[in-house]
Amino acid sequence: MSNELNFLKKLLPSLTQSDSVAVGPGDDCAALNWDENHLLLVAVDQLIGGVHFFRETTTPKQAGRKLICRNLSDIAAMGGSPLWALLTVATAGRNADWILNFCHGVSECAAQYGVSIVGGDTASLPAPGEVTTLTIMGIIERDNIVRRNGAKPNDVLFVTGTLGNSLKSGHHLNFTPRLAEGRFLSQNYYATAMIDLSDGLLLDARRLAEASDVRFALDVNALPLRAGANQNNALADGEDYELLFTVPHDRADHLEREWKFGKLTRIGIAQSGTPDICEMNGKSLTANRKCGYEH
Amino acid sequence: MSNELNFLKKLLPSLTQSDSVAVGPGDDCAALNWDENHLLLVAVDQLIGGVHFFRETTTPKQAGRKLICRNLSDIAAMGGSPLWALLTVATAGRNADWILNFCHGVSECAAQYGVSIVGGDTASLPAPGEVTTLTIMGIIERDNIVRRNGAKPNDVLFVTGTLGNSLKSGHHLNFTPRLAEGRFLSQNYYATAMIDLSDGLLLDARRLAEASDVRFALDVNALPLRAGANQNNALADGEDYELLFTVPHDRADHLEREWKFGKLTRIGIAQSGTPDICEMNGKSLTANRKCGYEH
Repeated sequence: MSNELNFLKKLLPSLTQSDSVAVGPGDDCAALNWDENHLLLVAVDQLIGGVHFFRETTTPKQAGRKLICRNLSDIAAMGGSPLWALLTVATAGRNADWILNFCHGVSECAAQYGVSIVGGDTASLPAPGEVTTLTIMGIIERDNIVRRNGAKPNDVLFVTGTLGNSLKSGHHLNFTPRLAEGRFLSQNYYATAMIDLSDGLLLDARRLAEASDVRFALDVNALPLRAGANQNNALADGEDYELLFTVPHDRADHLEREWKFGKLTRIGIAQSGTPDICEMNGKSLTANRKCGYEH
Repeated sequence: MSNELNFLKKLLPSLTQSDSVAVGPGDDCAALNWDENHLLLVAVDQLIGGVHFFRETTTPKQAGRKLICRNLSDIAAMGGSPLWALLTVATAGRNADWILNFCHGVSECAAQYGVSIVGGDTASLPAPGEVTTLTIMGIIERDNIVRRNGAKPNDVLFVTGTLGNSLKSGHHLNFTPRLAEGRFLSQNYYATAMIDLSDGLLLDARRLAEASDVRFALDVNALPLRAGANQNNALADGEDYELLFTVPHDRADHLEREWKFGKLTRIGIAQSGTPDICEMNGKSLTANRKCGYEH
């Protein structure tokens, strides 16, 4: 993400929010008052040819699937369940088959996760390209929502799955959004803070640290590596779409016993201190390095 | 809109919708189950440089305002009240000032209508341009929602404001979304069917006719003309963002007496017959002509 674009992330939190907004800009989803016991989760994400997928080697179906799965991952990161979606497709230089297959990539994945695509809009671009967006809406119980800001010192930092080498391995096109895992964590009050890993472990962990006002000490040797990934890839590659979350120290063993899903790894611990990511010996991991990939 | 893109409008209605979807794709907004008495209205619209605004002569603030007002017009067309919005901005070749002013154009107008911008996403385009989207969410009482499909033979066809010459007159950049009017119509059970005029009277009236399975006889001499517009402009120019709606014959006089807003004009009547738009003498107005502007 260029500096010109970064500012939206700064602008949005400065906007006035009505009382109906329970969680405004700055988390994986916004959360809006639904009824006494529930919040409406909403998020929007873009998928752009040449930016978020390789135009020549990605099939339209893969691109469509990736678009919705990125959004589903945001719902997972709040512990919610997805319900509805809106789709936009702006293209030029693509034939009807490409667009149809792209939409099928979205709609097949939507059906798989019980999401209804309730509307959308198509338009022509003035020059060849593909700019697509998906708005996801979901539901979460007020008592169960997991935000980025709840981590406390001594909480244990966990990550699902494996990290690094997402682009070369094709993981970014065929990952499974961690909805069941997110739901399990929120329903059973395990997670105190959570984020989905889209821009690289260091960058996203720092967001969690900043929102919670803690620092994380990482056991870099414990990082679960995806095939072909080294430790540096795991720290900074991005597009992992795994869940990074904190669990109270006295609940961590219990979580590991009850966990019914894939790989789950303890990778660090929250500490009091200036928000940052460091090694277990206290050495900063973010100083003087590119922390991840900002689209 | 090219033929390649038109298909999304055909594809969307074919998708399976869950029981939580009260009104699926094909109306101005989708309507989703909220609680016993309310529905959540949602719609998404795009605004693309070189397609929906002139890149050289439109200020970023005007473009931002137009984006959200187009969406507000969709909420108005269902009789609802807007609450929340999500924004995406994908650009290249624009500096930070352009983007900031664009976002201010959106956010100032949002504040004016009590809409909270609860989230968004920014991205870079691989080539110069501006592709922006806004997702609008609003609320409507179940009993008050006005859809496209409720017009009955003998209903009177009304339109707010004036028609035609929107682009040259600048109306498309400074129009007022007819939220108060739409709300008045829905709250007082006047309108049996409604649509907002974005693609031209003939084209949008035909959509209303097809959804309601009626034909409309238009009194073309009664069309309210915007300054600089002729009858043909009023029929086919597009970008009017006025409300076109039907009222039961025995309620039409009452509506005109109670109307507290700007210009309101009777322009025709619904009749039984194959859905089409014709003159009062029965001659089709849609045969052999371009009916409007499909983006």
